[in-house]
Amino acid sequence: MRIALDAMGTNEAPRSEVAGAIQALQELGGDLEIVLVGDEALIRAELANHPVIPKGLHIRHAPDRVTSADPPASVIRRKPDSSIVVGLRMHKEGDVDAFVSAGSTGAVMASSLFTLRPLPGVDRPPVGTMLPTAGELCLLLDAGANIGCKPHHLVQFAHLGSVYARDAMGRENPRIGLLNIGEEPGKGDELTIAAYDLLSVEPGINFVGNVEGRDIVTGDCDVIVCDGFIGNVLLKFYESVAGYIIGLLRHELDAVEDRKVDLEHVFRVLDYAEYGGAPLLGLGGISIICHGASPPKAIRNALAVAARAVGSEFVKHSAEDLQS
Amino acid sequence: MRIALDAMGTNEAPRSEVAGAIQALQELGGDLEIVLVGDEALIRAELANHPVIPKGLHIRHAPDRVTSADPPASVIRRKPDSSIVVGLRMHKEGDVDAFVSAGSTGAVMASSLFTLRPLPGVDRPPVGTMLPTAGELCLLLDAGANIGCKPHHLVQFAHLGSVYARDAMGRENPRIGLLNIGEEPGKGDELTIAAYDLLSVEPGINFVGNVEGRDIVTGDCDVIVCDGFIGNVLLKFYESVAGYIIGLLRHELDAVEDRKVDLEHVFRVLDYAEYGGAPLLGLGGISIICHGASPPKAIRNALAVAARAVGSEFVKHSAEDLQS
Repeated sequence: MRIALDAMGTNEAPRSEVAGAIQALQELGGDLEIVLVGDEALIRAELANHPVIPKGLHIRHAPDRVTSADPPASVIRRKPDSSIVVGLRMHKEGDVDAFVSAGSTGAVMASSLFTLRPLPGVDRPPVGTMLPTAGELCLLLDAGANIGCKPHHLVQFAHLGSVYARDAMGRENPRIGLLNIGEEPGKGDELTIAAYDLLSVEPGINFVGNVEGRDIVTGDCDVIVCDGFIGNVLLKFYESVAGYIIGLLRHELDAVEDRKVDLEHVFRVLDYAEYGGAPLLGLGGISIICHGASPPKAIRNALAVAARAVGSEFVKHSAEDLQS
Repeated sequence: MRIALDAMGTNEAPRSEVAGAIQALQELGGDLEIVLVGDEALIRAELANHPVIPKGLHIRHAPDRVTSADPPASVIRRKPDSSIVVGLRMHKEGDVDAFVSAGSTGAVMASSLFTLRPLPGVDRPPVGTMLPTAGELCLLLDAGANIGCKPHHLVQFAHLGSVYARDAMGRENPRIGLLNIGEEPGKGDELTIAAYDLLSVEPGINFVGNVEGRDIVTGDCDVIVCDGFIGNVLLKFYESVAGYIIGLLRHELDAVEDRKVDLEHVFRVLDYAEYGGAPLLGLGGISIICHGASPPKAIRNALAVAARAVGSEFVKHSAEDLQS
């Protein structure tokens, strides 16, 4: 199995990418190979800081780099030699089995969509995000790729989320919830009322009904589907509110304790770096987007998620599910 | 100044209401009078538990009670002798200056709308909620009364929020943000793109632009306007996530410390009971909705908010603002 890793994506690229790739090769084992895609000289210079380079690490030179100033939709045409476009092309051509990038979210989404194409039956491929809950992680779909969804889009998200939860998250009969403002059927806006009716009778998914804002963190769902507008607001709100509350607590704890209390575990539970990036679903390939601020561990975890999606044949299962 | 308090609203009514009203009279002073509206025998029995009854506490008998089983829109017609309908009628008729209830949110909203009527220029009166932030509290409008808003509704929310922030929250030149999925103009869904354009040129408000999910807790806005669907999801999510994160921390702290760390202050910052309920804006009167689980302190704080809105002539200022 070979995964292309955009080496130029993080804010301190290629440092996090090189360290994360080495960690992944050391820890994940199997037949994993990783291709670092980016400026070869910079990658080699960074590799020189590592005493041991594990087998299976390769470099593919890509001289150009996408920046946040590049309009996402133009990257394919205007930066064909960028690490994002080169890596995705390698995936398209079968040279690698998946693509991971911490570059501009918009550019990775647009370029993935253009290069890997939606699977038949997918109108608007969604991006997922993993939310920490009191139970296991919950996949929120869509987290911002699709604004102004129609009810049947949410049904497609439910199918893709089901397959992903089985293949990449190890859930047996994934529970699918619909983000809404009331528990009962008939509650909600135009979109969710209609989506509820469709989801209730849709074969092949385990629809558990409406999920209110207060139910997200309970862990009673494996997948929550929603329009990308609210998904994006929620995702960003969750990240920031976790930091805010922990800040409040840290302040209090510092005031009352001589020594600092170890909040490491709590940070870890709420740390997005633990959860391996945001997968794009419904494409003819695997593309995972990481935070621009990803530390090596986040890159390593995104590579692990990509490897799991490849090994479980997520794309093939998605295509089969959508055909049936 | 006289405020009608629905004595039958909380889950343990009239205990919280009676205790909250007594606290308010003892602490807020001035010319405040409170009329407890509800089952007179139950209220008198509860009053018997209090050794001292401050001056200014009155009872208005209302034999009927709204339950969560009552369809909100039918309450006015089918339960005219309920504490909610009687209290609002007193307000309408000028017998009191404001109404506070911890009863069914839907019933209070529908009955307030019907009884107090929207001010001229208000198409869809919004309900606000106070969000704790790293700075001061932020008013989120609409928190669930209006689903499927049009751009000009958000402009009306911005005006009402401005007046409320000045009158009831003491902010001088309230900063109004638009909840959105990007910072730049042109980002968002159909609603927010159009609302941005309107708000940018709207006189009489201090519009500070788009606010992303991650910016809500920074405290950089006094008021955030949004559709009631996302407002409601966010509000409920915030309440639950605060409890979840504090639970995580409590677990950790209990494990590492001999004695329990005092999280009282943090709970207080994140406790909705501190913030005095959810105001309905844009009506020809003042109506404040509290949680059904409100403790006496929450009732007391809602009465304080109502008193401040009355004293500052919030309704008059709203009407003037909307006429200009």
